[in-house]
Amino acid sequence: MNKGLRPFFDASGVAIIGASSKPNKLSYGIMKNLTSYGYQGAVYPVNPSATEILGLKCYPSILDVPDPIELAVIVLPAELVLAAVKDCAIRGVQAIILISGGFKELGAHGEALENEVLAVIKSAGMRMIGPNCVGTMSLYTGLNTTFIGGMPQIGGIGFLSQSGAVLGGIVDLVKGKGIGFAHFSSLGNEADVTETDMIEYLEDDPHTPVIAAYVEQIKDGARFIKVARKVSRTKPIVLIKAGKTTAGARAVSSHTGSLAGAHSAYQAAFRQSGVIEVQNLNDLFDVSQAFALQPLPQGNRVAILTNSGGPAALVSDSLAMHGLQMADLGAETQDKLRLGLNPSAQVANPVDMLGGAEPGDYEAALALVINDPAVDIVVTILVPQSLVNPVEVAKGIIRVAERAQKTVLACFLGDPAVAEPRRVLHANHVPMVVYPESVGSVLGAMWAYAQWRKKPAMEVDLVTDIDGRLAADLLASATERNLGEAFTRTLLKSYGIDIISGAEGKTIAECIQIAEKIGFPVVLKANVRGVLHKSDIGAISLNIKDENSLRQGAEEMAARIRLSMPDAQIESYLVEKMAPKGQEVIVGMRRDPGFGPVMMFGMGGVFVELIKDVAFRIAPLTRMDAEEMIFETKAARMLTGYRGETVSDVPAVIETIVRLSQLAYDFPQIEEIEINPLLVLAAGKGAIALDGRTILNMIQE
Amino acid sequence: MNKGLRPFFDASGVAIIGASSKPNKLSYGIMKNLTSYGYQGAVYPVNPSATEILGLKCYPSILDVPDPIELAVIVLPAELVLAAVKDCAIRGVQAIILISGGFKELGAHGEALENEVLAVIKSAGMRMIGPNCVGTMSLYTGLNTTFIGGMPQIGGIGFLSQSGAVLGGIVDLVKGKGIGFAHFSSLGNEADVTETDMIEYLEDDPHTPVIAAYVEQIKDGARFIKVARKVSRTKPIVLIKAGKTTAGARAVSSHTGSLAGAHSAYQAAFRQSGVIEVQNLNDLFDVSQAFALQPLPQGNRVAILTNSGGPAALVSDSLAMHGLQMADLGAETQDKLRLGLNPSAQVANPVDMLGGAEPGDYEAALALVINDPAVDIVVTILVPQSLVNPVEVAKGIIRVAERAQKTVLACFLGDPAVAEPRRVLHANHVPMVVYPESVGSVLGAMWAYAQWRKKPAMEVDLVTDIDGRLAADLLASATERNLGEAFTRTLLKSYGIDIISGAEGKTIAECIQIAEKIGFPVVLKANVRGVLHKSDIGAISLNIKDENSLRQGAEEMAARIRLSMPDAQIESYLVEKMAPKGQEVIVGMRRDPGFGPVMMFGMGGVFVELIKDVAFRIAPLTRMDAEEMIFETKAARMLTGYRGETVSDVPAVIETIVRLSQLAYDFPQIEEIEINPLLVLAAGKGAIALDGRTILNMIQE
Repeated sequence: MNKGLRPFFDASGVAIIGASSKPNKLSYGIMKNLTSYGYQGAVYPVNPSATEILGLKCYPSILDVPDPIELAVIVLPAELVLAAVKDCAIRGVQAIILISGGFKELGAHGEALENEVLAVIKSAGMRMIGPNCVGTMSLYTGLNTTFIGGMPQIGGIGFLSQSGAVLGGIVDLVKGKGIGFAHFSSLGNEADVTETDMIEYLEDDPHTPVIAAYVEQIKDGARFIKVARKVSRTKPIVLIKAGKTTAGARAVSSHTGSLAGAHSAYQAAFRQSGVIEVQNLNDLFDVSQAFALQPLPQGNRVAILTNSGGPAALVSDSLAMHGLQMADLGAETQDKLRLGLNPSAQVANPVDMLGGAEPGDYEAALALVINDPAVDIVVTILVPQSLVNPVEVAKGIIRVAERAQKTVLACFLGDPAVAEPRRVLHANHVPMVVYPESVGSVLGAMWAYAQWRKKPAMEVDLVTDIDGRLAADLLASATERNLGEAFTRTLLKSYGIDIISGAEGKTIAECIQIAEKIGFPVVLKANVRGVLHKSDIGAISLNIKDENSLRQGAEEMAARIRLSMPDAQIESYLVEKMAPKGQEVIVGMRRDPGFGPVMMFGMGGVFVELIKDVAFRIAPLTRMDAEEMIFETKAARMLTGYRGETVSDVPAVIETIVRLSQLAYDFPQIEEIEINPLLVLAAGKGAIALDGRTILNMIQE
Repeated sequence: MNKGLRPFFDASGVAIIGASSKPNKLSYGIMKNLTSYGYQGAVYPVNPSATEILGLKCYPSILDVPDPIELAVIVLPAELVLAAVKDCAIRGVQAIILISGGFKELGAHGEALENEVLAVIKSAGMRMIGPNCVGTMSLYTGLNTTFIGGMPQIGGIGFLSQSGAVLGGIVDLVKGKGIGFAHFSSLGNEADVTETDMIEYLEDDPHTPVIAAYVEQIKDGARFIKVARKVSRTKPIVLIKAGKTTAGARAVSSHTGSLAGAHSAYQAAFRQSGVIEVQNLNDLFDVSQAFALQPLPQGNRVAILTNSGGPAALVSDSLAMHGLQMADLGAETQDKLRLGLNPSAQVANPVDMLGGAEPGDYEAALALVINDPAVDIVVTILVPQSLVNPVEVAKGIIRVAERAQKTVLACFLGDPAVAEPRRVLHANHVPMVVYPESVGSVLGAMWAYAQWRKKPAMEVDLVTDIDGRLAADLLASATERNLGEAFTRTLLKSYGIDIISGAEGKTIAECIQIAEKIGFPVVLKANVRGVLHKSDIGAISLNIKDENSLRQGAEEMAARIRLSMPDAQIESYLVEKMAPKGQEVIVGMRRDPGFGPVMMFGMGGVFVELIKDVAFRIAPLTRMDAEEMIFETKAARMLTGYRGETVSDVPAVIETIVRLSQLAYDFPQIEEIEINPLLVLAAGKGAIALDGRTILNMIQE
């Protein structure tokens, strides 16, 4: 898929339109990078006022450039770009990297220009990265279209970034650490090629076992989920998201000109599609490097080998915080360790070989521990001591790790003293982190991904016993954006969601008829124009047992409503069966600008707002998605017999979530919809919507 | 205070007992360090089988060493240590660093030996660091008694560590980063000098503006809180705690031989005493360095200057996560920025000067932003770009920062490219971090500490209107460890805590008398031997309105109890006034092995276990401690009128917490005590204990 992106990393020839011979220009930096890293294709500087740049013949126009030419890098003032792109189309260039800024990020005028450029690209069947980006690097072909000083080492990480300037810092950060990359790309404004396109391209790239990304915004959330869910079946996608908080989102929007959307939607999308979200830049590369070098863990039982107790305690804390367990070493393993190590050494896990541990101790102990069937993962910690050679320790670890099928991670605490051992470890497929705290982040991510890979591939469960026609008619008939219970009941019912029995009555007499039909006791609710939360104005009367009580309840209710809303007009009543006992939960949907329908599930009652114990997923959902949502919250414990409570009908909740999800997916005009509360009865008895509301994003004429 | 610790960092003369001339011995490493870093005092190797080591005269015994001699470093096999320590006492040595291992950390035999050594130390009036440690360093005197290779730069951090081996890694980690230290100390088994002694010593050390610590365990929690609370009024104490999780605590105990205690107690102690707990080693030094170099922020409004939007977004996220706000730059500031910067630059906060920003841009923009009255803190972000000189940017920042009273922090993303600017920044009082995520950790810590410093010094509020005699008698009369409501009611009452009116009755007739006296409606509870949670066996009957209902309620209750506990014996009843409406909270205490009485406050009902929304503090408490506990939890919102609820009597809750805290502090035999629920009435109406239980750690004979 997305084979059209190949020239960005592997072009037969590349032109630099706007190449400069002045060393203080960015385009000169690009020329230098193109000619410095072993790129074997043709390189053509294009500049009407120069004849030669860096010893290469300079062409007045892209139209004059000879074959082979697949890629053009454009570094021109924004106002000259459109003409250059048109020339590229004429010349038959396949791919364009538009480095120049001055487009959408500067507002309406720039956006118009960007759209004109894009129209040319599309009609010519070209692909474009940018504008407002710093280009691409392939460590395999040596094609480097950036002006960044230096290049990282070759390796397995395919990296894409929605921030360009950050790439210079990242290259500097990983340089010399032996963190290896296959590809680097800065995507800029993503007028054409998006983060999702690049992920799709890297899926099939044989040099890229792991995809890493810096992301600020995903515009087509549905496509991202679809692509990421497929790609992450075979390759881990490790991602850092900027703009998680309101302040961060504002900072993103101030430099990209578009809103990032709620982080809860991003988190939901990442969970549903197996994307590994990390919380900081350090983790982004530590985690990616570990995926690139080591096999996935088969379990979460970790053994620690160390020459210092303190860091082992910090590592243990960090493992526990990330869902990993300390392995119980077998008696045989401990006996053998005891024979080989310093008599004062600690042979239970963590295995503390003490400060004097030699390279041979590490190698022998690792060989013993890694073969213990109770161990899935081994962490080898080294704190540099004056008499121990860290490179020799590294070599001992490598010798055991390369023969083992289990996950090995090294944690060497230090800076200059661990630089050389890190290079040796990384060159030999053993990832190394510096900080004890990073161990949990890395192994937690690997273990979570290993579990994701074991899950069956999930299909969205389409529900067929629905009345889509009824729902469509109902939505088309709406005359207001905010719609209350009466409307929402019918809508929910059309998609097979159980609602409490009841009906709308215009008069008290009608209400009595309804109550007699459904049977007392009943609940009486008044529909008051403009009021969504009936309880706020006292418009609910519970547990009415007979006709007289209904009349009296209606009078008292009217008095209460007048008290809080003197001008209130009761338009009609809802008469509903008094609900049996059960657990109250909330199921809802809010439409996100990027991801579309975001489903929400949480505990009901006043606590939903106080505790914010809610889970999110993007519709449409699989039944497994719905189940995972429930079990992400504490509501799950309430539903499964917490403190002697009755076990509730969880399958009915899953069914309700899936049906509401499909309703939201089928009708984009629903902006928000909520069942609050959904009453969950005892196992096998179902779940019933007791109240609901709907907000439309438009009124269809 | 603790002036006796001076010789560990500033001895007139030091002897190394067990000095070796063999370069592969640790004691040779110590000799080398003692003679390599400019230490001006006398150095005496002591070894009966050598005449000279590293050009220094070697003495057969410490008894032969001439004046001046204040400090002895002992590096001998454990079995030779006691004799050497005795000789030190005879020779009049004031301080001993016992490097040797083989003591308490190896079990009972070692512990006995350690106690013998300690007895000699105490009776001679000496002080001792260790055993099982790696010694001390003073960057000011050059006295380095460790065998660690290399020494960090001189600066303001006084560092103490309960892990020895980790120090080698830490020195390597900070070396070359320009992170400056005043003192380094490894405390080992802390037989004599503890972490608290060292903190107390550093309080008066003029070279140490900030104290940093790696801590695994605090044995005397009460003294730690007292000392830390005092020291942190003038100097920040930045601390990392290992053993926060069960796995981490086990790892700690496996190498120190003693249990660490619950982390909730540590967290409570740190909050109460102004100690800044960081979550990882990277933050430990980033945060400490910032305290050492910059003034405390006067507010939490942060402005960001950057040459790259992505890192600014990550920094904004990290600030929001740590309680800091983005400053709203004034119109005047923005106008001036617009004049001076690239026309495409973003002049609202974050100020994005774009990739081409020059050193002059940084300097000019920083000068404008830092003078904006809406700004308390400025973060300057630099991502290395090929055409920008980071050292010159650093110098521009320094020129503005040194004239300003406001907090400045640099974030330069990279590794080799930012090494030199970091050295320059650190040498000129501007702290620099590498990762955007570190910015929030550093500034969050500084802002939290600035707020702590502004709080009035707190005194423990002693409550005087208590009946200590009654409480003492009651506790002395207890015949069981687990004591139920009847006992606990009287105990609480003796300390002036309101309890629901009621009394114990042996027979139904008695119960009726009680009910008539206190007035119907009442609650009837049955006391059943061995049952602490009455509701579990149905031993509670609510809202009894008259004599007949009481009889009937008692019969039904007896039937329920028989059903769940066929052998149950109802020993007596409690008749209590039916409680009015109110909010239910829990106030309790659990005794920690290190910190003593840990007070707990949280929301009541089934949710306390489900949500674990509880706060902890160590008794005795100030009223401010109690108030802070309440406002740390979501219960605070329930008590202060959440969703239209009545505003509750928070002062009465504070009073109850303070009184229970004093009860727990006064009587160490109370192992646990809990008021569950405490019913909080409307403001001004008080709070009433409805139920309670007590567990004693001994029965007094």
